[in-house]
Amino acid sequence: MTQLHVASEKHLLGTKGMSAQEITSILDRAAYWEQYPVKLSNHLQGRFVANMFFENSTRTRFSFEVAEKRLGAEVLNFAAAVSSVQKGESIYDTVKTLESMGIDAGVIRMKPNGLLPELAEKIKVPLINAGDGNNEHPTQALLDLYTMRKQFGELRGLNVSIIGDIKHSRVARSNLWALQAVGARVSFCAPAGMQAPELAAHAPYISMDEAVKADVVMMLRVQLERHEESMFKSPEEYREAYGLTVKREAAMAPHAIIMHPAPVNRDVEIDDVLVECGRSKIFEQMSHGVPIRMAVIERALS
Amino acid sequence: MTQLHVASEKHLLGTKGMSAQEITSILDRAAYWEQYPVKLSNHLQGRFVANMFFENSTRTRFSFEVAEKRLGAEVLNFAAAVSSVQKGESIYDTVKTLESMGIDAGVIRMKPNGLLPELAEKIKVPLINAGDGNNEHPTQALLDLYTMRKQFGELRGLNVSIIGDIKHSRVARSNLWALQAVGARVSFCAPAGMQAPELAAHAPYISMDEAVKADVVMMLRVQLERHEESMFKSPEEYREAYGLTVKREAAMAPHAIIMHPAPVNRDVEIDDVLVECGRSKIFEQMSHGVPIRMAVIERALS
Amino acid sequence: MTQLHVASEKHLLGTKGMSAQEITSILDRAAYWEQYPVKLSNHLQGRFVANMFFENSTRTRFSFEVAEKRLGAEVLNFAAAVSSVQKGESIYDTVKTLESMGIDAGVIRMKPNGLLPELAEKIKVPLINAGDGNNEHPTQALLDLYTMRKQFGELRGLNVSIIGDIKHSRVARSNLWALQAVGARVSFCAPAGMQAPELAAHAPYISMDEAVKADVVMMLRVQLERHEESMFKSPEEYREAYGLTVKREAAMAPHAIIMHPAPVNRDVEIDDVLVECGRSKIFEQMSHGVPIRMAVIERALS
Repeated sequence: MTQLHVASEKHLLGTKGMSAQEITSILDRAAYWEQYPVKLSNHLQGRFVANMFFENSTRTRFSFEVAEKRLGAEVLNFAAAVSSVQKGESIYDTVKTLESMGIDAGVIRMKPNGLLPELAEKIKVPLINAGDGNNEHPTQALLDLYTMRKQFGELRGLNVSIIGDIKHSRVARSNLWALQAVGARVSFCAPAGMQAPELAAHAPYISMDEAVKADVVMMLRVQLERHEESMFKSPEEYREAYGLTVKREAAMAPHAIIMHPAPVNRDVEIDDVLVECGRSKIFEQMSHGVPIRMAVIERALS
Repeated sequence: MTQLHVASEKHLLGTKGMSAQEITSILDRAAYWEQYPVKLSNHLQGRFVANMFFENSTRTRFSFEVAEKRLGAEVLNFAAAVSSVQKGESIYDTVKTLESMGIDAGVIRMKPNGLLPELAEKIKVPLINAGDGNNEHPTQALLDLYTMRKQFGELRGLNVSIIGDIKHSRVARSNLWALQAVGARVSFCAPAGMQAPELAAHAPYISMDEAVKADVVMMLRVQLERHEESMFKSPEEYREAYGLTVKREAAMAPHAIIMHPAPVNRDVEIDDVLVECGRSKIFEQMSHGVPIRMAVIERALS
Repeated sequence: MTQLHVASEKHLLGTKGMSAQEITSILDRAAYWEQYPVKLSNHLQGRFVANMFFENSTRTRFSFEVAEKRLGAEVLNFAAAVSSVQKGESIYDTVKTLESMGIDAGVIRMKPNGLLPELAEKIKVPLINAGDGNNEHPTQALLDLYTMRKQFGELRGLNVSIIGDIKHSRVARSNLWALQAVGARVSFCAPAGMQAPELAAHAPYISMDEAVKADVVMMLRVQLERHEESMFKSPEEYREAYGLTVKREAAMAPHAIIMHPAPVNRDVEIDDVLVECGRSKIFEQMSHGVPIRMAVIERALS
């Protein structure tokens, strides 16, 4: 148990179980890095970080890579689509192999749910979760909290609506745990088939009309192809029922902001004209991903 | 209009509209870099350049990457085939995302025609076109001009024949605009189905017999699979009609040179034995790609 | 012939023909690098090394990349799966292109057998073979010898059994030549359909019962899909006949070690519980890959 506890502090597997203090200290350190006067530091000179993406993601990998390089680390990139994982090599063997080669930390993204804690126990180098199944995506939640704190100054008492495919969303889960840890109030909004029953005890499901009244309206990427055709006959039908349309945006409070983990489906979960509107923080979120990941990698390696 | 003009100076979208002076200043700076005594400079230390290849190309990406690294920049590589573009993410959103992460310049290659100017207007960081559809490939033309200038000392008055699939060729277009800007004379040679009607007003179409008499015989890569089968029944038939065969090479002027943007189809548009013959500048062209791209990236970031 | 001899010293195409002295000097230099106190040196600052993988391999490419970066070199990565090799560009043209761009050395992996010597004669920069067909994989053999020497102190007189698909294995071949050069004794063990007739004159084929009595039991990765179905009806059947099972491991000498070039097929050629058992050197082998490749790259560029 002690062993696992130590491992948990070194790794970043999820926001579940993180304390408000731990979260705040990462946000504070990210603020330091956002203000850092030069683009390259030598904080991690001579350290090797491997980005192991068993599931592809341009934006997340790039964000980590920029963060690692700004810290002065040497970066190794691995994408499953071009690797021998195709030859049946297991994720464990790949990570263990990289550890053997002397990497100092690993950023890892993968499709399977629940494999990561087991992996983290067997691996000596710190692992940072860049998204695993529909379980967690902790750095996304941390950059979301950073964006909210920057906007509102304070996270405690903030009302956050998370809207869309909660069932499949690791972003929703990581935000739920992190936001509740720092005292924000989370509500979900989703059609029955996109709700996550196991989360019902943690946050209420509310209607779209209520959801858009929050301080933060966080839209999730919807992938209709994951669902039965009967649920929504078309993207247009989804938009009508659960999209953030111009009409719904008009009902938002003047101070409220729009967030989205991206990539967006324009005119499906969010209207095209809203993506870069005044209250949208979508590209700011991406911008905050770099200092957050600098803080997280630095924490793993210190 | 002023906005666009400023953007044009920062970006490098094409050679169309570039002045002789602008082209010459890039060629001069490339000559400086070609002679640069050490392989690594610190000119762009702490600057991030993203190579965004929505269409794959080994040689062009490598050439840019060597140029960027020799300038001391940090390099991020993105190839669409291993990215979330597959998930429907638009090119715009990807570029905008990278901009949000703090890159200083982007090198971009893509299949769609005509998307780039629109993109460049919306994006704040300078963009360098590494090939877009059949529109432009400006750094290729610049390295071609560099190669010709190095060979002949002077570009004004030079006769250049461009032979092959003009219709689909961005290399032909970028060379046409750049060569005419510096006072060279361009002729095209192509079967009817490979001619570009919209370029007919800019350069004459001539016969193969005439074309091989130029100072520069520039062969284009032919991709027969893009055309109706009726045009040429086989690569051999194309070679007979429009290939640079040993026999045709014998009719070239003693001082004339062979060029090709590569990769070559040996024994289709050019005979295998000619690829590395004395008057072929094909691998020299590739070699010149590095200093030209150093000059272009430096210009974008200065 | 002299030309070819000089080329052979610069390149590392295989272990066949290497002298004991040459091998020992690489192992000694690897020992220096393994003890090197800092992770980054500036030995190869300003030198460009291209990893050209026309056949994918995560572990080998990573191992070379870590080695190159630890030496301070600039690294370019190329994987055929995302390259214009798909467009029919030949391996030769790609390598020649990279040479034209000013790389200082190339690490190359490819499927075709026998192409490499021809390539090495035409290319001026040193080439390091990272695996070609079923011909050679010299750095794997060198790291294997390094692992054995570290374990036993001395290679001369060592008994090494290589077990599995000898026919398709470049690892078996490179180990055979290297081990014999330094005075070790090699035996093979394989079912008839996996034997290599042309190697029969160089090493005896022995039974599994005999093979497990060696000082070093080297298991090879088996790919049953390469063989006729009649040979083994299932992985389980292969395991019964030629796998290193727990039962067979019990028959090994107390001092003997298990080796495998990885990736392993757990419970096919080796039982899952043996992969990380006390006498298994599998992950140590991977760890030794880095200093061996540092020694090999340094040799190529000095």
